[in-house]
Amino acid sequence: MTGTLVLLRHGHSEWNAKNLFTGWVDVDLNSQGEEEAHRAGEMLKEHGLLPDVMHTSVLRRAIRSGEMALLAADRHWIPVRRSWRLNERHYGALQGKDKKQTLEEFGEEQFMLWRRSYDVPPPPITDGHEFSQSGDPRYAALPPELLPRSECLKDVLNRALPYWYDQIVPDLRDGKTVLVAAHGNSLRAIVKHLDQISDEAIAKLNIPTGMPLRYELDADMRPRTVGGEYLDPEAAKEAAAAVANQGR
Amino acid sequence: MTGTLVLLRHGHSEWNAKNLFTGWVDVDLNSQGEEEAHRAGEMLKEHGLLPDVMHTSVLRRAIRSGEMALLAADRHWIPVRRSWRLNERHYGALQGKDKKQTLEEFGEEQFMLWRRSYDVPPPPITDGHEFSQSGDPRYAALPPELLPRSECLKDVLNRALPYWYDQIVPDLRDGKTVLVAAHGNSLRAIVKHLDQISDEAIAKLNIPTGMPLRYELDADMRPRTVGGEYLDPEAAKEAAAAVANQGR
Repeated sequence: MTGTLVLLRHGHSEWNAKNLFTGWVDVDLNSQGEEEAHRAGEMLKEHGLLPDVMHTSVLRRAIRSGEMALLAADRHWIPVRRSWRLNERHYGALQGKDKKQTLEEFGEEQFMLWRRSYDVPPPPITDGHEFSQSGDPRYAALPPELLPRSECLKDVLNRALPYWYDQIVPDLRDGKTVLVAAHGNSLRAIVKHLDQISDEAIAKLNIPTGMPLRYELDADMRPRTVGGEYLDPEAAKEAAAAVANQGR
Repeated sequence: MTGTLVLLRHGHSEWNAKNLFTGWVDVDLNSQGEEEAHRAGEMLKEHGLLPDVMHTSVLRRAIRSGEMALLAADRHWIPVRRSWRLNERHYGALQGKDKKQTLEEFGEEQFMLWRRSYDVPPPPITDGHEFSQSGDPRYAALPPELLPRSECLKDVLNRALPYWYDQIVPDLRDGKTVLVAAHGNSLRAIVKHLDQISDEAIAKLNIPTGMPLRYELDADMRPRTVGGEYLDPEAAKEAAAAVANQGR
């Protein structure tokens, strides 16, 4: 018996609209993001893809996207589990900065290195910084060495995989349909792992917001179809292209 | 080490506004109910009463009330657990019926017996009934003898107490602040147990919607203050009086 994985990237947030680096800053969805989450839930219902359990990050935009999708799919009553390990990539000292200004200030090469290189993190955020997570009660139980000050995608993958193996895989092995409502980079990390995408090729992979992505997994927890299947492939293609052009 | 219990009855629903018996029918909050939930969360925050874990029923109006309160209190990231054992009382064949019409049809005595007697359940609902929960996927894992067709408050207490003892008490023993977002009658059952209210006296106890009720518990899981403390005692008193007059 094997399970079905459904990945859902949260919709537009207040800072998407302002074109700011967000990372671990706990900004809310905007009305477009709420609409995307609701629509994602309707799509799950239309496709009869009904989650038995949901996993989310501890960030408001993913939590609300998941909750709104489940309400629209009439699955609001399923168990939910959350972990910082599903959080967005920590954007270090870039958190709160304007993407376009950062591009102009540091140039295309450095900008793309921070945005898309696999193993180069942005400069670390200082603990006293306005957008630091130091002192945030939701991370108070973490030993200090676990709280990131900046992350590259490799860091995200390394902290997300233990949650994948220990919390999500057991649900899939139980034959469940598992919804993961999370973020662009935590989902890219999971997809990189599942589809065995190289450190170079992952740079070009963009996951669109609000588009449920289904993976059927075999007994080795490998995808039956590489890349999975978007419930609405045409819309997903257009949306992914739009993500690639952010900051322009 | 002992914990803090916070009870929150969900706010007004679409059927409160229509004055229909709701029970296990999964109706949504109306805009007044949403506002109550949001305000309850603000009150938690203002009083520094910050939940570490939330327990809800599997009904939309309690789930959404809890979620909205946590969002307003900036505690949306805490663990959440749900159980049918925290559901509203099952109103049997009365589910979906107008309260005023029922009062007129059956008379004051029978009406109050169904509404407030401790051990007289309304007539059972049939499985094919429009508002029956038979076939609802959220109860599919329950053995058929556990799915109620009608309940009196005594029935609610008997099915809620195992959840209280096995799921909520361990959280309280860990010293946590535990939010229970549930329903008029599942909360009355818990309060009856905590305050050792007699089968007769419980008839007069009304819990207002959207008003956080705090209990500090000792090592025997007994309240340090009988009846607990509403965060806004004056507003709670007025609201409880309004509940008592429903159906008039």
